[in-house]
Amino acid sequence: MSAAPAPAAGGAELPIGVFDSGVGGLTVLRALCAVLPGESFIYLGDTARLPYGTKSGHTVARYALQATDELIGRGIKCLVVACNTASAAALPALQQRSSQLPVVGVIEPGARAACAASRNGRIAVLATESTVRGGAYTQAIARIRPEAEVTAIACALFVALAEEGWTEGPVAMAAAERYLEPLRAVPGRAPDTIVLGCTHFPVLKSVIAAAAGPGVRLVDSAATTAQEVRALLAARGLQRATGAAPPQLRFLATDAVDRFAAVGGRFLGAPIAADEVELIDL
Amino acid sequence: MSAAPAPAAGGAELPIGVFDSGVGGLTVLRALCAVLPGESFIYLGDTARLPYGTKSGHTVARYALQATDELIGRGIKCLVVACNTASAAALPALQQRSSQLPVVGVIEPGARAACAASRNGRIAVLATESTVRGGAYTQAIARIRPEAEVTAIACALFVALAEEGWTEGPVAMAAAERYLEPLRAVPGRAPDTIVLGCTHFPVLKSVIAAAAGPGVRLVDSAATTAQEVRALLAARGLQRATGAAPPQLRFLATDAVDRFAAVGGRFLGAPIAADEVELIDL
Repeated sequence: MSAAPAPAAGGAELPIGVFDSGVGGLTVLRALCAVLPGESFIYLGDTARLPYGTKSGHTVARYALQATDELIGRGIKCLVVACNTASAAALPALQQRSSQLPVVGVIEPGARAACAASRNGRIAVLATESTVRGGAYTQAIARIRPEAEVTAIACALFVALAEEGWTEGPVAMAAAERYLEPLRAVPGRAPDTIVLGCTHFPVLKSVIAAAAGPGVRLVDSAATTAQEVRALLAARGLQRATGAAPPQLRFLATDAVDRFAAVGGRFLGAPIAADEVELIDL
Repeated sequence: MSAAPAPAAGGAELPIGVFDSGVGGLTVLRALCAVLPGESFIYLGDTARLPYGTKSGHTVARYALQATDELIGRGIKCLVVACNTASAAALPALQQRSSQLPVVGVIEPGARAACAASRNGRIAVLATESTVRGGAYTQAIARIRPEAEVTAIACALFVALAEEGWTEGPVAMAAAERYLEPLRAVPGRAPDTIVLGCTHFPVLKSVIAAAAGPGVRLVDSAATTAQEVRALLAARGLQRATGAAPPQLRFLATDAVDRFAAVGGRFLGAPIAADEVELIDL
């Protein structure tokens, strides 16, 4: 493996790097922009090689390192791995990549949000195949609440539904009911908290909530991750100065910038113009 | 671009190379094995980079050339591009790659099957985003039946449904009804023939047929492609000798061989053991 590129000099004025396999991580970027309105961001979606969720951990880790090197080379002060699959497969490797660069994943914040929300200690995790197989959420929750009962369900179709924009209606509803069936299998033992353990899933919140039934809380990593990044910047004195030039938002994609812009707008909650997205090769 | 590797010597005894983005092309391999039971095959699924259907034509063509070089390097007598997206994006480039090697795609055979099946000349093509955007089926059908009316519909979710194994039931049915809605929009003008223009879609045949309604014929490329390969081998005297060693079936995948074996069995119609699948890097 080659050495990591040297980080560009700069510090507080540099953007925060956000990395995802595609457009799903834009839900995390949306939360980051809300919590840190004065910061600049550079978002990289590895759209040429998505989805990560059906790939092996080894391959996902290799791709994540390439994306990280690209962002480090462009100059960032902090890296947010806004992809559950990459967080689960590669966070330790990414944290070792550049000892000066703080790296934040989405698994720990999601696990903390779930443990704080659950009253009965029964938590369901909806995620991609790869994240479920790796067990990262189950382990993270066990570290915080060792007595918690965790049920993890791989929901591959939710990714396709979110990308297709079918976030409501009969197809999404039928898929949510089918995936959540195991949670209703033992009456009186149902989880009271569901973690949306893939950044694509928040756009399907309403059908997942309907399938889960009343009294079940849905949590995702976006808001807690954004809080963690804010705390980290404050602790290291890396907040961008107010009164500096207006903050910037830049997008990089490894393929199909038109599709990134069209589909991405749904996840960011704001339109993205195709000419704002730079095509790069990793 | 580097030069193509030199084809291994051999001829008729060599296997037929079959290339797809993942496991969907196994439906084509199944048809090839049925029509050519004495032939050996080597199948390459580019599972690390699937799906191709949401990627740009340029990227798909680059990946297809790498896969072709790998198969040529191992020695094949003929290449079948068992992926509609790669056939649409890269067939001319692949045919130029090695002038001695016959290359067969799945678009032309599928278009011929549709033109032969349709009585009223109204044909619907269900395919991936990339195949629909490129217009390859529409153009291929127009060359054969210039008067035909072609409606192409991108059905991204069908790929995820087929891979998840949800080929029947309420989710698949609701998705098929939603995708086929435009075909029923103008009464009396509905197509009488539907091309399953992605190798994943034949496993969803029953729900697509139910959504299309009675009297609509479903055709796919698998059987006509296999017939074309048989005719090509006969014309070039490349049939394998009967009485030689038993034919061999080999599998290569660029990632997640366990998943390739587990999901692939559904498409091949016969079980695949994980240790029969060789992991390769392109």
